[in-house]
Amino acid sequence: MIELYHFGFSTCSQKVRLALAEKDQTFVSHEVNLVTGEQNDPAYVKLNPKHVVPTLTHDGHVLNESSLIIQYLDDAFAEPQLRPTDALGRYEVDAWTKHVDDALHPAAPTVTFAIGARKVMLAQPEEVREAGINGIQDPVERATRRSVLDHGIKAPEFAGALGIFIDTLDRMERKLGQSRWLSGESFGLADISIVPYVLRIEHMGMDPLLDAGVRPRVSDWLTRFKERPSFEVAVDAWTPAPVVAAMRADGHAIWADIEQIALAHSAEG
Amino acid sequence: MIELYHFGFSTCSQKVRLALAEKDQTFVSHEVNLVTGEQNDPAYVKLNPKHVVPTLTHDGHVLNESSLIIQYLDDAFAEPQLRPTDALGRYEVDAWTKHVDDALHPAAPTVTFAIGARKVMLAQPEEVREAGINGIQDPVERATRRSVLDHGIKAPEFAGALGIFIDTLDRMERKLGQSRWLSGESFGLADISIVPYVLRIEHMGMDPLLDAGVRPRVSDWLTRFKERPSFEVAVDAWTPAPVVAAMRADGHAIWADIEQIALAHSAEG
Repeated sequence: MIELYHFGFSTCSQKVRLALAEKDQTFVSHEVNLVTGEQNDPAYVKLNPKHVVPTLTHDGHVLNESSLIIQYLDDAFAEPQLRPTDALGRYEVDAWTKHVDDALHPAAPTVTFAIGARKVMLAQPEEVREAGINGIQDPVERATRRSVLDHGIKAPEFAGALGIFIDTLDRMERKLGQSRWLSGESFGLADISIVPYVLRIEHMGMDPLLDAGVRPRVSDWLTRFKERPSFEVAVDAWTPAPVVAAMRADGHAIWADIEQIALAHSAEG
Repeated sequence: MIELYHFGFSTCSQKVRLALAEKDQTFVSHEVNLVTGEQNDPAYVKLNPKHVVPTLTHDGHVLNESSLIIQYLDDAFAEPQLRPTDALGRYEVDAWTKHVDDALHPAAPTVTFAIGARKVMLAQPEEVREAGINGIQDPVERATRRSVLDHGIKAPEFAGALGIFIDTLDRMERKLGQSRWLSGESFGLADISIVPYVLRIEHMGMDPLLDAGVRPRVSDWLTRFKERPSFEVAVDAWTPAPVVAAMRADGHAIWADIEQIALAHSAEG
C-alpha cells in the first residue's frame, strides 16, 4: 500500500503525484496543510525530520525527498519506464533533477512569496505568519522569506531567484530543440521534475516568459504536458483555482516591474 | 577514453577516483590545483561552470558533479555492480549520496579551513588568499570561508559543521549494526560517497571521534575500506603525506577545544 503525505499546491508534491499517476498507482492521501503549518506537527516531523512535504510510505517503508521518491517509483514499478536505459541518458536525467534540487527548488519560495503568496501571508494574523516563518529550518531560507515578505519583488533575493528560473527556461528551450522531451524522445522524470516550476511561473502571473513568441519550444512542451492524463489527476485536481487566479492577477498587476528585472538579468547573462 | 580533471586532496575527486578504481578503469589525469586557483582558469570553467573539481570526460561527453559521475560509472561499466538492484536498496544509496551533497559536503570546507588548511591559507601572500576566497561562487560559502579563516574553530559556523559530521558518524554507526557496508552486504557507492569525509576527520586530527572505543563499527568499516586495493590507488597515492601530517598535528594540538564543541553538540542532540 502507498500512502502520500502531501499538499495540493506544493511543487515537490506535484512531482510525486505525477510519477504515481504516470505509473497508474493509487495512494491513500494525507494532506499536510502548509498554510496552517501542519508540516511542523510533531507526529509528521517523525516521518519527515526536515518538516517538508511530501513523504511517501510504501508497504511500511518511509521515503523522503521528492527527487529520490520519483526515482524509487520508477525502479519499483516497471511500466512505463520514465528514464532512458543508457548510462548517458540516465546521467542527463540526473543532471536535470539535481539542477532542480540545488538551484530551482531553493529559488521557488522566493518567487512565490515575493508575488502571490505574499498577499496571502500578509493577510494572516501576525502570530500565524511568524510561526510559519520561524518553522523554516534553514536560517538563510528563513531570512530570505522575511525579506521577500517585507519588500516583495524589490527584495534583493528576488532578482537572483528569478534569474535562476529564466536561465532554466533558456536551457530548456535549447534542449527541446534537440529532442521532444527533456531527456529524449520519451516523456520522463526530467519533465516531471521541472514542470511544477514552469507552472509556478504561470501561477505567479509571469506567463509572458512562457509565451510562444518568446520561447516557442517551452510553450509547446507545456501544452503537450498539460494534455497528458496524469496532469489532470496529479496537478489540476489539487490546484485551488480561485487562489491561483488571485495570485496570477497579483503578478499581472506588477508585470511591468517584474519584466524590468527579467530584462536586466537577460542583458547581464 | 576517460579523462579526469581532479585534485589530489579533494573529497569529490577521491569519490570519482575510487569508483574508477573499483571498476578497474584507467584514465588520463589532468590535475587542477585548487591551492593556486586553477579551478578558476577560463579554459577549465568552460568544462565546469561551477569552478569545482572533478570533471570527467568519457568519449567526448563532459560530466560534472561527483555524485552523478559515480552513478554514471556504475551504469556505464557493469562489473562490479556498486548499487543494489532492488528499488528500496537503490533509494537507500541515493539517500546517503543526497545527504553527502546537501549536508556533509557543504560542511567539509568549514571543518577543513578552520583547522589544518587555515594555517596553509594564512601563510599565503594576501593577494593569493583573497583571490582564492573571491573565486568562491556562492556568497554564503564565501562569507563562511572568511569567518573560519579569521576565527578558526571559534567561528560560529564551525560548531554547526562539526555537528553535521558527528551526526553522520552516529547514523553510520547505527546502520553498520545492520549490515556490513552502508547499503547492505556488498560494498558500493554509499561507502564511496562517505569515506572522503570520514578521512577528512582523520586528516584534521579529529581521529578520537573515530576511535574503536567510541564508534567501533565505523572504526572497523574504515579499516576494511583501507584494505581495499582501490583505496591505495585512488586515495593514498594522491594524498600529500607531509601536508596531511602537518594538518593532523594542527588538529591534535587543539583537540581539547574541539572536543568541547563536539561534546556540547552531542549533549544537545
